[in-house]
Amino acid sequence: MRIVGIDPGSVRTGYGCVDTDGSRHRFVTCGALSNAAGVSLPDRLRAIHDGLAHVLREAKAECVAIESVFHAKNVRSALILGHARGVAVLAAVEAGLPVIEYTPAQIKAAVTGYGRAEKAQMQQMVKLLLGLDTAPTPHDAADALAVAICHAHTGGAVGHTATPAPRHLRSWRHVKIEQLGRRQAP
Amino acid sequence: MRIVGIDPGSVRTGYGCVDTDGSRHRFVTCGALSNAAGVSLPDRLRAIHDGLAHVLREAKAECVAIESVFHAKNVRSALILGHARGVAVLAAVEAGLPVIEYTPAQIKAAVTGYGRAEKAQMQQMVKLLLGLDTAPTPHDAADALAVAICHAHTGGAVGHTATPAPRHLRSWRHVKIEQLGRRQAP
Repeated sequence: MRIVGIDPGSVRTGYGCVDTDGSRHRFVTCGALSNAAGVSLPDRLRAIHDGLAHVLREAKAECVAIESVFHAKNVRSALILGHARGVAVLAAVEAGLPVIEYTPAQIKAAVTGYGRAEKAQMQQMVKLLLGLDTAPTPHDAADALAVAICHAHTGGAVGHTATPAPRHLRSWRHVKIEQLGRRQAP
Repeated sequence: MRIVGIDPGSVRTGYGCVDTDGSRHRFVTCGALSNAAGVSLPDRLRAIHDGLAHVLREAKAECVAIESVFHAKNVRSALILGHARGVAVLAAVEAGLPVIEYTPAQIKAAVTGYGRAEKAQMQQMVKLLLGLDTAPTPHDAADALAVAICHAHTGGAVGHTATPAPRHLRSWRHVKIEQLGRRQAP
């Protein structure tokens, strides 16, 4: 099973790909999509969406693991993060992949055995678990690998799988479009 | 100039299309994309994205106006709204359309002349300004028409146009992908 973990952000979106046979996990690749400074939000969203679609295709991902977010510094940063996460999830669902969500505590517990582990501890454990020579950088890529490892460890047992919709609800065609009649001539 | 206003939401996304020659505005169509209850967030995001892409194509939109959001009830609802808004903005940018943002106060001022107008007042003015027989429903469609009217009134003078990125920054190809070397054999 090939898992791609995603750590979305509007400036930098990390991804990490891990193979697992249920007991042994193997590092495949990781990286981050960086947006240049001064790029507008719409263009950044497109870069994240298209970049992730490319990564998922190239990596031949079989499922996507992503951190569920309930907290943010403030409403403004939650909104921006939501934009990035929205197009990331869209890229996964367009690729026909199941999206499994894990809380930060689940990820930390799966990687370090402790639900409140520090960031540095997490990076060290990611390095150790995947037998890497150096801790993966940037930290967005390490965070993405951690989510992938979490899914590999738990086999999806503790994650929240986004409920697959019945086939007839999956496309816009079956979304109700309510329309007013055109304006009558005066 | 044909403007499509969008009022994004994860449950219901309103859209409203208005033609303007600079001084006179004409109602074209409006409606809402509704997601069935129980549909997962990934599937809802896909429905919003694909539905809006269809609407923009069918309406032959020339630009998209959208409310800028800085406030939400709480961080959780800001995150969910951000997801919906993210895929809505993506649909516009994929269609090659400029996205212009207006604050709620700018929209209210453009439609009613008063930056703190009530919702009911807004719906009545939308009906009046576009010569409709009834106030547009659902209210998401009315809100979307209000954003479109705001852009038609101001000609983009007060809105915040998402800065168009230089052509070479527009696609994921130019996003830096940082990759760790593959794990060395033990």
